[in-house]
Amino acid sequence: MDKSEFGLIGLGVMGRNLLLNVADKGFTVSGFDLDESQIRALKVEKTDSQRIEAHSDTKTFLDSLASPRKIMLLVPAGAIVDSVIDSLVPHLNEGDLIIDGGNSHFIDTERREAMLSEKGILFLGTGVSGGAQGARKGPSIMPGGSKQAYELIAPLFEAISATYNEKPCVAYVGRGGAGNYVKMVHNGIEYAMMQSIAEVYGVFKAYGHSNAKIKSAFEGYQNGRLSSFLISITTKILETKDPQGKGELVDVILDKAKQKGTGKWTSQNAMDLGIAIPSIDMAVSQRALSALKDLRLQLSKRVESTKKPNDWTFKDLETLGEQTLFSAFIAAYSQGLHQIYEASKAYDYGIDLVAVIKLWRGGCIIQSELLNTISESFTNETLQHLFESESMKNELLEAFEGLRTFTISALSHRLAVATLSSSLSYFDTLHNGRLPLNLVQAQRDYFGSHTFERIDQPGVFHHDWPQ
Amino acid sequence: MDKSEFGLIGLGVMGRNLLLNVADKGFTVSGFDLDESQIRALKVEKTDSQRIEAHSDTKTFLDSLASPRKIMLLVPAGAIVDSVIDSLVPHLNEGDLIIDGGNSHFIDTERREAMLSEKGILFLGTGVSGGAQGARKGPSIMPGGSKQAYELIAPLFEAISATYNEKPCVAYVGRGGAGNYVKMVHNGIEYAMMQSIAEVYGVFKAYGHSNAKIKSAFEGYQNGRLSSFLISITTKILETKDPQGKGELVDVILDKAKQKGTGKWTSQNAMDLGIAIPSIDMAVSQRALSALKDLRLQLSKRVESTKKPNDWTFKDLETLGEQTLFSAFIAAYSQGLHQIYEASKAYDYGIDLVAVIKLWRGGCIIQSELLNTISESFTNETLQHLFESESMKNELLEAFEGLRTFTISALSHRLAVATLSSSLSYFDTLHNGRLPLNLVQAQRDYFGSHTFERIDQPGVFHHDWPQ
Repeated sequence: MDKSEFGLIGLGVMGRNLLLNVADKGFTVSGFDLDESQIRALKVEKTDSQRIEAHSDTKTFLDSLASPRKIMLLVPAGAIVDSVIDSLVPHLNEGDLIIDGGNSHFIDTERREAMLSEKGILFLGTGVSGGAQGARKGPSIMPGGSKQAYELIAPLFEAISATYNEKPCVAYVGRGGAGNYVKMVHNGIEYAMMQSIAEVYGVFKAYGHSNAKIKSAFEGYQNGRLSSFLISITTKILETKDPQGKGELVDVILDKAKQKGTGKWTSQNAMDLGIAIPSIDMAVSQRALSALKDLRLQLSKRVESTKKPNDWTFKDLETLGEQTLFSAFIAAYSQGLHQIYEASKAYDYGIDLVAVIKLWRGGCIIQSELLNTISESFTNETLQHLFESESMKNELLEAFEGLRTFTISALSHRLAVATLSSSLSYFDTLHNGRLPLNLVQAQRDYFGSHTFERIDQPGVFHHDWPQ
Repeated sequence: MDKSEFGLIGLGVMGRNLLLNVADKGFTVSGFDLDESQIRALKVEKTDSQRIEAHSDTKTFLDSLASPRKIMLLVPAGAIVDSVIDSLVPHLNEGDLIIDGGNSHFIDTERREAMLSEKGILFLGTGVSGGAQGARKGPSIMPGGSKQAYELIAPLFEAISATYNEKPCVAYVGRGGAGNYVKMVHNGIEYAMMQSIAEVYGVFKAYGHSNAKIKSAFEGYQNGRLSSFLISITTKILETKDPQGKGELVDVILDKAKQKGTGKWTSQNAMDLGIAIPSIDMAVSQRALSALKDLRLQLSKRVESTKKPNDWTFKDLETLGEQTLFSAFIAAYSQGLHQIYEASKAYDYGIDLVAVIKLWRGGCIIQSELLNTISESFTNETLQHLFESESMKNELLEAFEGLRTFTISALSHRLAVATLSSSLSYFDTLHNGRLPLNLVQAQRDYFGSHTFERIDQPGVFHHDWPQ
């Protein structure tokens, strides 16, 4: 039998699905897992025409791979990645390639790339988005590291990735940890988009609309400029019955949202870079607040149950909801893209922002038609921030006025729209040429002699304020 | 001459002032700095009755100190603290005490304490707040580490600290990095309070009120339940003339606020602990947005200059502004206290929350009368979160309705009130027994099989959603 063109370590559902996807495209592949049950599952799922080997012995797995070996890891981020790499290294040759496809921290990726590079082994920290279904049918792939390493695997990645208008949703993202960085920010954007959808859904619910009615609004959104993976799955969630027979499933799900850390990393790193991503921050902190269910139940008894809001008809709400979600998506994308733009400079990643936007158009969780519009804007104009777009200017100004109307009404009815109002504040703050932070800077100089600048002349000043 | 009871390394303005304060209280002291100009400055400032020595030689400085030596460092946080400690260690004896009085990260403090403890040297990571004036006249002091170490220095700290109702604004905060942790959160709270004051000032400005008029409102606040250091300095800032003769100084200060990192650390650590502190997060990100002055000026041309708002008379605004700031201060304090409460559990610091609140009542930047009310509430009731207070319940409910009215009007006039609206959302979210995050959790289960809980039975569930 010929040697395999691609090896994959970690045959959980993501790994199996990705391997089956690669085999579908005609590549010969080898899978590895210590867990025999995962190997059996792979053997059950593979078709006769797929050329797939499965191993639980490192040596026979590595021997089955053609040189230079191309080995992808789909194992949990953290220490396990290091231990798998350590187990491989003694058996690898110069020029072999390891691809980490998990949600590793970009700093870990840079450490691993440096360590492997000393041994002549190539390494790509690669974001993969799309969940289990995406892995099987075509994910969005964000590889970062050396260009030489990328070129070894580019044909395979282009064959297995999702496509948008027949273009593969993969591109060389940049140097070092760029691939993991971009995937991390992707997930931060995902947090803000999901939370914004939930807040709009919450307002529909507060107006007393049924899940079927809300689904009809979201189906309308899916047929327009909001067409996206997250809106699409929301319509499917809203129509799903509880298998235990208690109405619709979404209504019996507890309102505590968990997190696995990449949203948090996005916010923490933005703070290190001095970049503001308030909608993402707020989506992270709303998940934390959701966990305080007992406190919320106790405090909720103190506020009179609000009269059901009736400012708007369903049609009004549908229209305003659409503008609101459009604005919220724009806020999430623009914050994430701004962060990537600044991070690429700070870390010297050399990221091509347009390539990133384009590869997000299909396969991944944040995929949307809007990203195609945004990619055109970044292609045709010289933008540092999406809000600068001339081609989208009127659409943005109009949509954010819809967000304003929606947010104000929700706040007046005591509805929880924290992330939506962060997106509105983000827009207002950036469209404000004179913020009140002159007073903050005066206070800092008053008690800490931290100095200030003046509006009328260059230089740095300190005042001897009256005590 | 008798040996000195206290040594201080780092004779910058903070260090000199603290040393003069200690000497005022009758202690014999030695100062150390490599910079002779700082030593000269100290000699100029000291009075004849003060028993102060100044050294620039480590050996003579250390020889001048009585055993066990008590040596405080007031040097910039980071590598300098390590290098100063390294320079001292070979000359110290078991039982000597080093106190780091800078804004060190709590993790660094724990590392240093462990290293020194192996050599039998005591260490206290100690937050000191109050700026240069506070150091001279009485700061608020937050020491953390071993109780044994604290007891060595407690009489001196109690003598030099600020007082509130004759009680010293110092207390043993807790184990390990607890002192630096509490000071870090103090600074996070400071960010949110300053930003909230600035946003209220910005609304007054948008209504066209003069600095003198705004100052009169803030003077009224200072005479009521908002009495605090930050309100007090705001009144003084608002009446300060530009020394260059261009009207009032605050008006010519550039609206870019800088940051030194402790607010950011507070937000980043809250995210690690899964605690929501959205008002502090937003105050951090508003400083980042303030830096984008060119982008803001460019985008501001796109929005019609808003008609001067006229919803309210000055008197209305004054009343709503008071309720708004009261709510904003409550939001900032409650988030910070909640974070300390949870951090104390997570890191096993053993922090006495009431002791922390009490020592913040005087000397520090966030000092206020409100903290006395809060300390009574935490003393008399069993609270995990300030919002649970029964004694403050009606005051909170009323004030946050004022914040709601203020925020909604500001948003409708496109004014930048990002932090105020975060505080309002924080309140609303915690008074909401059913958030829309059931949908977020459904989405997570849909694309990532992350599972969910149900409202009607215990357990963890996964659904095979329609694709």
